[in-house]
Amino acid sequence: MTKKLIITAAVTGAVHTPSMSQYLPVTKEQIIDDAVKACEAGASVVHIHARDPKTGRPTSSLELMGEIVSGIKKRSDVIVCITTGGQLGMSLEERLAAVPAFQPELASCNAGSVNFVLQPAAAKIANPKFDWEIPFLEGTYDLVFANTYKGLEYYITTMNQYGTLPEFEVYDVGMINNIAFFIRKGIAKKPVYIQFVMGILGGIPATIENLAFLVKTAKEQIGDFKWSVAAAGKAQFPLVTAALGMGGNVRVGLEDNLYVKPGVLAKSSAEHVDLVRNIAEGLGIDVATPAEARQILNLKGLEKVGF
Amino acid sequence: MTKKLIITAAVTGAVHTPSMSQYLPVTKEQIIDDAVKACEAGASVVHIHARDPKTGRPTSSLELMGEIVSGIKKRSDVIVCITTGGQLGMSLEERLAAVPAFQPELASCNAGSVNFVLQPAAAKIANPKFDWEIPFLEGTYDLVFANTYKGLEYYITTMNQYGTLPEFEVYDVGMINNIAFFIRKGIAKKPVYIQFVMGILGGIPATIENLAFLVKTAKEQIGDFKWSVAAAGKAQFPLVTAALGMGGNVRVGLEDNLYVKPGVLAKSSAEHVDLVRNIAEGLGIDVATPAEARQILNLKGLEKVGF
Amino acid sequence: MTKKLIITAAVTGAVHTPSMSQYLPVTKEQIIDDAVKACEAGASVVHIHARDPKTGRPTSSLELMGEIVSGIKKRSDVIVCITTGGQLGMSLEERLAAVPAFQPELASCNAGSVNFVLQPAAAKIANPKFDWEIPFLEGTYDLVFANTYKGLEYYITTMNQYGTLPEFEVYDVGMINNIAFFIRKGIAKKPVYIQFVMGILGGIPATIENLAFLVKTAKEQIGDFKWSVAAAGKAQFPLVTAALGMGGNVRVGLEDNLYVKPGVLAKSSAEHVDLVRNIAEGLGIDVATPAEARQILNLKGLEKVGF
Amino acid sequence: MTKKLIITAAVTGAVHTPSMSQYLPVTKEQIIDDAVKACEAGASVVHIHARDPKTGRPTSSLELMGEIVSGIKKRSDVIVCITTGGQLGMSLEERLAAVPAFQPELASCNAGSVNFVLQPAAAKIANPKFDWEIPFLEGTYDLVFANTYKGLEYYITTMNQYGTLPEFEVYDVGMINNIAFFIRKGIAKKPVYIQFVMGILGGIPATIENLAFLVKTAKEQIGDFKWSVAAAGKAQFPLVTAALGMGGNVRVGLEDNLYVKPGVLAKSSAEHVDLVRNIAEGLGIDVATPAEARQILNLKGLEKVGF
Repeated sequence: MTKKLIITAAVTGAVHTPSMSQYLPVTKEQIIDDAVKACEAGASVVHIHARDPKTGRPTSSLELMGEIVSGIKKRSDVIVCITTGGQLGMSLEERLAAVPAFQPELASCNAGSVNFVLQPAAAKIANPKFDWEIPFLEGTYDLVFANTYKGLEYYITTMNQYGTLPEFEVYDVGMINNIAFFIRKGIAKKPVYIQFVMGILGGIPATIENLAFLVKTAKEQIGDFKWSVAAAGKAQFPLVTAALGMGGNVRVGLEDNLYVKPGVLAKSSAEHVDLVRNIAEGLGIDVATPAEARQILNLKGLEKVGF
Repeated sequence: MTKKLIITAAVTGAVHTPSMSQYLPVTKEQIIDDAVKACEAGASVVHIHARDPKTGRPTSSLELMGEIVSGIKKRSDVIVCITTGGQLGMSLEERLAAVPAFQPELASCNAGSVNFVLQPAAAKIANPKFDWEIPFLEGTYDLVFANTYKGLEYYITTMNQYGTLPEFEVYDVGMINNIAFFIRKGIAKKPVYIQFVMGILGGIPATIENLAFLVKTAKEQIGDFKWSVAAAGKAQFPLVTAALGMGGNVRVGLEDNLYVKPGVLAKSSAEHVDLVRNIAEGLGIDVATPAEARQILNLKGLEKVGF
Repeated sequence: MTKKLIITAAVTGAVHTPSMSQYLPVTKEQIIDDAVKACEAGASVVHIHARDPKTGRPTSSLELMGEIVSGIKKRSDVIVCITTGGQLGMSLEERLAAVPAFQPELASCNAGSVNFVLQPAAAKIANPKFDWEIPFLEGTYDLVFANTYKGLEYYITTMNQYGTLPEFEVYDVGMINNIAFFIRKGIAKKPVYIQFVMGILGGIPATIENLAFLVKTAKEQIGDFKWSVAAAGKAQFPLVTAALGMGGNVRVGLEDNLYVKPGVLAKSSAEHVDLVRNIAEGLGIDVATPAEARQILNLKGLEKVGF
Repeated sequence: MTKKLIITAAVTGAVHTPSMSQYLPVTKEQIIDDAVKACEAGASVVHIHARDPKTGRPTSSLELMGEIVSGIKKRSDVIVCITTGGQLGMSLEERLAAVPAFQPELASCNAGSVNFVLQPAAAKIANPKFDWEIPFLEGTYDLVFANTYKGLEYYITTMNQYGTLPEFEVYDVGMINNIAFFIRKGIAKKPVYIQFVMGILGGIPATIENLAFLVKTAKEQIGDFKWSVAAAGKAQFPLVTAALGMGGNVRVGLEDNLYVKPGVLAKSSAEHVDLVRNIAEGLGIDVATPAEARQILNLKGLEKVGF
């Protein structure tokens, strides 16, 4: 409990749609603002996706991503973790293009394949603001979030090449073994950094029992690693709070949960960060600054990014 | 997460000694005060032990217990949970005497036998205030906290007779099976109320993994039950916080932990209650009043106690 | 332990290649023979894939499947469980075509998406008998075994229509939740029948701890279900044997493991069945006949199949 | 799975009574015979208690123990593990007297305190052969099997002094932490040898899930250890078989289970050994000879015992 806590803010993601919350940042200015505010509130990492500024639809536009991350860098020393989740139909190279382009300190690296179903959310949107929202959500009923071994090898190798630390997103137990495979092959370097992403329909449900099992499994299979947890929806705070007691780090933000308490929409990811920082301090846990988080994760430093 | 949270404050216990903290309540006035303050802070249950007012040594004096519980009742409608832990050498009848005498709504009922070792604490006391402290702590190196099946049957039966709900203190996995045994015999009535007491040297260590395992085991073996968790020392808040996310209730207080954060002694159990209530409210969990806790636990009511 | 044990023999599968074992059945005659022998040895279910008789390559030929299952039916009353795993590039309808065509009592229904990597096996084949083997194995390095929610719904609905019980293949923890989703939707009918398929690279590793966790999770999420376990390679017998002690059923056969003990190739799946039946009988567990297995699984009966 | 399996036969114990099975060995000749036969069947360790030859009542007679262990040594090189369980009312020195007296290679060392209830067995004995049986069984309703920290320290220290390896009997999760305590104190030496004794009423129930949890906990808390499992009654073979798949060793014998299959009494512990050896060999696991077991456990050797 003496080590410092890394709070990651995932400020917009590619899961929620504008009709779900008026506070979901969609323009680059909004995303930059929310990232900076989250850092001011205590986040040392921001996890970044881009969205089409007109429709709020998730986009893989490299140009937009570049404007967002350099916009953040102008105002904050927060660690930027760029998504590589990509979109259906993109090639490996396209999904990973942001890594060579921006050479960030940290980037997500999805550690296996899993169904990723948002379809039940469609039924809750009575009057969608945008035409794409319902088809987008319903389309996930037939979606596999595909991350093959070949893809994983390509991602890790490329990140190694650019000095970018992979943040391994783990959606289920078997993915820990995937990471262990690439460690044995000498491709992934220890200590790895794992984000347990729980509660996606298709992946492992977001319960504290399951988190405990994931952590135990990783201890056995990998040994030396650092971890954080993200949980979807109302499970976010129960899981995040449990992680504090288990020595883990945490991810909060509007990508994972639009609410700050039952029935109350969060006005920005900074509200989540505030809340978790308060809880952490109540537990006597210090929150890491970006500089401290860089040291903990052994990152190359902001001066070496390509944006 | 919609149900209300029962916070129990264990205000003094029989584990810590006066040299460990100047804030440990020892006189009846101090114990009453701390119980009342804990209730004002949000506790709906107070767990009560008596201590010798001159030396602070735990005592099983019925007279003192009577003065404490009636003193609390004069100032607060909090639920009083009387200890039945007793002391080495006491008969079953002596250990349980407070139940017939005061007919409380709730009393502890230790669910099995376990070593209960406080001896390492002795080495941390450089200048004991009282002669009894070091021998008391070191004596636990040879102590079994004995609660045989015969004793358990006697306790449960007697509590049933006086309308007192047993709060089953569970120190390890096998004790859940002990409770299941008495349910099968028709002696213990469902739904039972379990306090998982973790981190006693001799019992199950206080980790979130272990708590998850205890809860899962109880679900399988008992099915319908209510639970709370208490954890010793610095594990108190990590465990208590995890319990909030698992749908459990919590016990805090100076019996379990003298600190409110690393290096800072708690001035009273109310500080713990404040802290846990803040975390709970941050998580969107409402804290039960004593009246609401009575309903949740289906207690007989304050008007039916014998004090 | 009083209930009867269902032994499934998966006689050839689509994982191993002819160069790995001369005993792998590939022609329809060999597959029929091995299925019948497995039944004579104690299997009440045979899990059937077809292979090209010339090259041994897995095929989705409906004609071959029809010849195999009717060939088995002429010689044995064993329950036939037809695969629906299909092959890359097939449509849902093509993968499931055997169900309308043959209306079997039981068919596999893969409960989610997962990487399914056989590539490390390629390095162990010094002199492949057939050209397809190495590319087939290495190709899995870029393979997702895709089973979306839309696919699952289509499979279950179609099986319901033809009176075919889905045998849900579960490769990781989250897939249990997928099944629970379709139960809540009223699409899958309780009690479901689950085959835990463990040890696939990409899925949950084959350890007894993991099996215990899967079973516990299914109890919590589904409640009323029947299960069996299959484990890849040398984990087969440790897992299968543990399942006997946990009240589960078992799948053995050359699909999962080519060996009958370290270094000794099994001459047919019947050798596996013999071995597990001996262990079961040593444990006082009776082995179900096909008729008894039909009753346990509540199958429609051999007279109602379409082959 | 390449390492050799140590089978321990606990030939008579102090739990069962003569009326439960005519085959329970009670005279020294019977106990010696059964130990030798168990070794011939494949046991490399025999766990020895003495009984009064006239009444079959467990006894702590040093004289009888001496005659038994030297009788075994005359006929077999099996490793003798002497009990130190003792009886109610005995001092530490009396319970441990066999260690200085016989300086065995291995002796049981109960790793904590627990209720140890045999009382439900009393109701199953319609016509007890001996007067002591029913009161003995019913008496356990009020029994704590007391093994305090002071006692544990005394036992381990004394065994260290005589070159006797403690076989730590673990009845519940917290006892693993007791062992870890004595390792930290430098009193117990790594690698320790643990016997998980499951299914005693009062201790952890005998399920495979629980065994997996015990093993995981020990890996985390102790790291480097060897283990075996013993389970009471009909859970014996399911648990023992699971242990084979988990890389553990096993204890069988009439102390733990009087039956060899449902409804069939074992004629001697050798029948259990036969059964488990057959299962092990079916799984491709080699059974250790006494010489091999000595090497695995790093014992001092039969020439250095004091009997």
